[in-house]
Amino acid sequence: MSTSSLNLGLIGAGRIGRLHAEHLCRRIPEARLLAVTDVNEAAAHDCAAQLGLPQWGGDYRKLLDDPRIHAVVICSSTDTHTPLIEAAAAAGKHIFCEKPIDSDLGRIDRALQAVARAGVILQIGFNRRFDPNFRRVRQAVVSGEVGMPHQVHIISRDPSPPPLDYIRKSGGIFLDMTIHDFDMARFLVGAEVEEIYATGSARVNPAIGDAGDLDTAVVVLKFANGVVGTIENCRQAVYGYDQRVEVFGSAGSIVADNIYPNSALVQGRSSIYRDPPLNFFMERYVESYLREMSEFVRAVLEGKPSPVSGPDGRIPVVMAMAARRSIVENRPVRLAEIG
Amino acid sequence: MSTSSLNLGLIGAGRIGRLHAEHLCRRIPEARLLAVTDVNEAAAHDCAAQLGLPQWGGDYRKLLDDPRIHAVVICSSTDTHTPLIEAAAAAGKHIFCEKPIDSDLGRIDRALQAVARAGVILQIGFNRRFDPNFRRVRQAVVSGEVGMPHQVHIISRDPSPPPLDYIRKSGGIFLDMTIHDFDMARFLVGAEVEEIYATGSARVNPAIGDAGDLDTAVVVLKFANGVVGTIENCRQAVYGYDQRVEVFGSAGSIVADNIYPNSALVQGRSSIYRDPPLNFFMERYVESYLREMSEFVRAVLEGKPSPVSGPDGRIPVVMAMAARRSIVENRPVRLAEIG
Amino acid sequence: MSTSSLNLGLIGAGRIGRLHAEHLCRRIPEARLLAVTDVNEAAAHDCAAQLGLPQWGGDYRKLLDDPRIHAVVICSSTDTHTPLIEAAAAAGKHIFCEKPIDSDLGRIDRALQAVARAGVILQIGFNRRFDPNFRRVRQAVVSGEVGMPHQVHIISRDPSPPPLDYIRKSGGIFLDMTIHDFDMARFLVGAEVEEIYATGSARVNPAIGDAGDLDTAVVVLKFANGVVGTIENCRQAVYGYDQRVEVFGSAGSIVADNIYPNSALVQGRSSIYRDPPLNFFMERYVESYLREMSEFVRAVLEGKPSPVSGPDGRIPVVMAMAARRSIVENRPVRLAEIG
Amino acid sequence: MSTSSLNLGLIGAGRIGRLHAEHLCRRIPEARLLAVTDVNEAAAHDCAAQLGLPQWGGDYRKLLDDPRIHAVVICSSTDTHTPLIEAAAAAGKHIFCEKPIDSDLGRIDRALQAVARAGVILQIGFNRRFDPNFRRVRQAVVSGEVGMPHQVHIISRDPSPPPLDYIRKSGGIFLDMTIHDFDMARFLVGAEVEEIYATGSARVNPAIGDAGDLDTAVVVLKFANGVVGTIENCRQAVYGYDQRVEVFGSAGSIVADNIYPNSALVQGRSSIYRDPPLNFFMERYVESYLREMSEFVRAVLEGKPSPVSGPDGRIPVVMAMAARRSIVENRPVRLAEIG
Repeated sequence: MSTSSLNLGLIGAGRIGRLHAEHLCRRIPEARLLAVTDVNEAAAHDCAAQLGLPQWGGDYRKLLDDPRIHAVVICSSTDTHTPLIEAAAAAGKHIFCEKPIDSDLGRIDRALQAVARAGVILQIGFNRRFDPNFRRVRQAVVSGEVGMPHQVHIISRDPSPPPLDYIRKSGGIFLDMTIHDFDMARFLVGAEVEEIYATGSARVNPAIGDAGDLDTAVVVLKFANGVVGTIENCRQAVYGYDQRVEVFGSAGSIVADNIYPNSALVQGRSSIYRDPPLNFFMERYVESYLREMSEFVRAVLEGKPSPVSGPDGRIPVVMAMAARRSIVENRPVRLAEIG
Repeated sequence: MSTSSLNLGLIGAGRIGRLHAEHLCRRIPEARLLAVTDVNEAAAHDCAAQLGLPQWGGDYRKLLDDPRIHAVVICSSTDTHTPLIEAAAAAGKHIFCEKPIDSDLGRIDRALQAVARAGVILQIGFNRRFDPNFRRVRQAVVSGEVGMPHQVHIISRDPSPPPLDYIRKSGGIFLDMTIHDFDMARFLVGAEVEEIYATGSARVNPAIGDAGDLDTAVVVLKFANGVVGTIENCRQAVYGYDQRVEVFGSAGSIVADNIYPNSALVQGRSSIYRDPPLNFFMERYVESYLREMSEFVRAVLEGKPSPVSGPDGRIPVVMAMAARRSIVENRPVRLAEIG
Repeated sequence: MSTSSLNLGLIGAGRIGRLHAEHLCRRIPEARLLAVTDVNEAAAHDCAAQLGLPQWGGDYRKLLDDPRIHAVVICSSTDTHTPLIEAAAAAGKHIFCEKPIDSDLGRIDRALQAVARAGVILQIGFNRRFDPNFRRVRQAVVSGEVGMPHQVHIISRDPSPPPLDYIRKSGGIFLDMTIHDFDMARFLVGAEVEEIYATGSARVNPAIGDAGDLDTAVVVLKFANGVVGTIENCRQAVYGYDQRVEVFGSAGSIVADNIYPNSALVQGRSSIYRDPPLNFFMERYVESYLREMSEFVRAVLEGKPSPVSGPDGRIPVVMAMAARRSIVENRPVRLAEIG
Repeated sequence: MSTSSLNLGLIGAGRIGRLHAEHLCRRIPEARLLAVTDVNEAAAHDCAAQLGLPQWGGDYRKLLDDPRIHAVVICSSTDTHTPLIEAAAAAGKHIFCEKPIDSDLGRIDRALQAVARAGVILQIGFNRRFDPNFRRVRQAVVSGEVGMPHQVHIISRDPSPPPLDYIRKSGGIFLDMTIHDFDMARFLVGAEVEEIYATGSARVNPAIGDAGDLDTAVVVLKFANGVVGTIENCRQAVYGYDQRVEVFGSAGSIVADNIYPNSALVQGRSSIYRDPPLNFFMERYVESYLREMSEFVRAVLEGKPSPVSGPDGRIPVVMAMAARRSIVENRPVRLAEIG
């Protein structure tokens, strides 16, 4: 773009939307957030008031019709993602869209086609790629510091399960939770997965099983280049948000540990201990949320490719489907079987 | 105060001044930075432009005369601190002043008297008290987690020495660098030091010795309550900014380690390693700078006592003088000898 | 037994045999090693000379015929294990036998039946169960410290692959290397595995693949109680012997890290580092070898059950077969399919 | 010497004597322990019986008169050290003597002169020099890995104070406990101390103060080469035996941490924790006791200089005296003032 700052509009002023709004207003100098909309007008108003934004409302069309706005940030509910992407693309707006794009591959493909036709930039909100710790791991792979990767191991456990109502609409653990780990595996290894084997059950809360979902799962990923990945998921780790990765290769191994609120270590009478890791994803990943949005703004301003493209958003959905089928049929499933 | 937000003016738009300005504008919702001045008008202008501040100039009097401004943040050179404190107090402004207040106890005392007469709040910029790691250590002392403290150990080493020109005007290592550690020791133990023994030399750069200063020092602090503190200082740690503390007590010990840019650990052919600690004080202590200013704003708004009072600013200057005399006379020196 | 010390004979004076001999002579007060035999008489002689043993020779029958000897330690080549177990049992000797018992289930079953008939104690050499680190992990499961286990993760990597000649006779990675991890998984979880999925390839050395074996593998274990285990194997970790485990459960997680030659941490110019972990299995596991033999001696003297029974030796062989079949057929394989 | 094995006699079969005896009998192949004596004959008998030694008794003269014995190991009470050294030297025996040699410099000097006249090898039992962790630190100094040393910091805290009866006869904390740290400081830095400043009090148990001793102390060491050392001592660390050192130099820093019974780390609901460090000095330092005796045996057999010479035993006694005087006179004391 020929300007040095980017005008944006935000669609969806929920928890994540408000976080992005704050970053756009206060932490990213090149960004100007002009307006916010939400189907819940009160939410849009609150967000605008808190940040001193002049414009807010219930209808996202206003953003798309505003010629001053270059890009939109879509943080509304998942079922609205593809129609909003298509509408924004048609309006010539660049698009940042939260993950997942959708749970239906046909809808995803239509949306990605619309983006391609319009020639706008689309970035999907896989924020963890921007976490400094995982970035360091990726860098060790790219630079050859750990040699040719052989194995990648991802531990991804939430502090506690979401409400059952949320679970029922979530599309299942693989689409809702593991999807981040599918993206992380692709990001760290820099290659594509061909086959997936998954196993799991509802061990934390039987009601999750009654709802047709799992809360504890292990997934094996076979990459085209021979790397094998393993993912350990659980909806409940009592010690907090457990987010670790390890890449093992021909020249060494690199591990990213959890993040802690402080570095203090106590030598006490019965143990040597520290405070548990950061417990809340918005605190744990605050840096990654800021960086992904900064990079989106910069990509648009500089006309560079999106750091997390439309296909990067589609493939983990396919992986989630393959994992689900692997559970149902108790066999390794090739991604090519999915579509 | 009866308002819910605080209007501030900034005096001194150097490196630290600009950091405080950014925090006041973008990270502390209750603060409104109205104006910035600097004897170097260009610096004031740049700072104002970058943050979109309406008012800037070369003369701090404008801030003091502006009835809308409740408080000033003094980040100008050390020799201007006491006159500015006195003027601001006379104008009824609350005051945040960078450390050290001054190197002359008489001037400090006059300034503190002016503050007392005016009844304004004065906070000295000992930011490290607000670092989450050292806070956790202090909390372990307050809560009794480590029992009655016996010993405190502070490691405080800079990545590299400042320019010789700076050294010559710095007042010496104890007033310039160790002063933070003197404050930290008082903060962690929660008691007063009675006697100081110091030893040191110029080992990093003989020119520092030629300038009459030390670059490497060890200081022993005897507290009134029997605790003994040790400080290890050096102007150069090749591995980065080395900032650790340990408090040992009757029920255990607590150590705060350095802060690292990421949590990644590499298992390589010849060693297991991680990246060195954060190297730059403004990065290492960014959180503490933000928190000290937030607490200043809140203290003024709520009429609470300053978390780092005028006497908290004066005592470490006395300690620096005692340490200096201990070096010269090679004997333990009581603070009562200083004044 | 009614005596307070145990007389033993050693069969097989190779590397491991000599280690056991030294422990029996010098570190286990209740043990008396009376004689050593090896088909290579010179090896038996060397071992006896070094330890001051009065009796040595090429024929193990001498040990079995010696009425003073209560127990034998079998460290000869794997193909001799079952005939030696049967002969020792027939002679009424208690038996410590190195792992694996055999690669043929029929032979194993005949040997275990001979042991049962004779009523002697048989302990299989799964030494890692006696490692203080893994013991601590098992204790955390038994005591409920980590709650109900959900997932167990085992990293088991050798510093470098054995010679190809060894590989060709090894029975394959699962029988030769992973067998320790199969035992570890059963030990840590305290339950049986029902189904195994494995994937792997020859990434370290293609010649290993040409020999029909793998050098890098991932194995998933489904336990009867719903726990899921994952094993990461590789024949080459350039940083040393990589032996870690983690058990994650409803009340927490416990990780056992590698063992290091010293605790020193260097803060250097470009990294913070320590020396790599212990590199050689006899150094890494020396404590576990000592403890397993001590417990064998104690079990015999006190008439207690073997801490690693015959079935404990058989089941990992079945697991290795299931893993192998899973590789061949690319599907999860139930242990019940094996026999 | 012209033989390949060394015949030794042990004087004093207390706790430490028995440990050395076991190492000589079972862990050091070149050593043959022929006899043990103790003024308490029963102790000598028990020790001999446990290790199968043929000869024992109450009178050390038997050892000195036995021409087969090349060297003696003196583990009797401190007041017997110098007469035994003189007698052994006169008998032409090489000598390993536990620390401290004595608390009287005149007696030490006479003993060292006797050793010099006889031309025998004398090694003092400063075992910590042989600990693999501290060795690694020393190696980093020798090799230049941390550059030119600037500061050394030693933390040395016991799990709990000895009985008051022991305290009363101990010669005071500096001679009894800090003496190890004085030796460690000299060993790590590889230079001599010129001046000492000490401060301390009885904080753990006032009765220790009533007995004229301290239980908590800080010592500053000024080395001839400009290095400054600090020692933190306490008779009671509730979390176990706290033995850490750090050497900071122009090219980096190296820290040796405590030693733990296992590597397991638990992630629990309220903290991340591990078991406390090894608590008992004979367990913590077992490796160093074995290595010091191995090196003594090798030094004698190979006619090499003692790794811990007589002067190495004398100097820390002088340092303890200087520290004591510093406490009494509250000033830095030069070693040259002592004698």
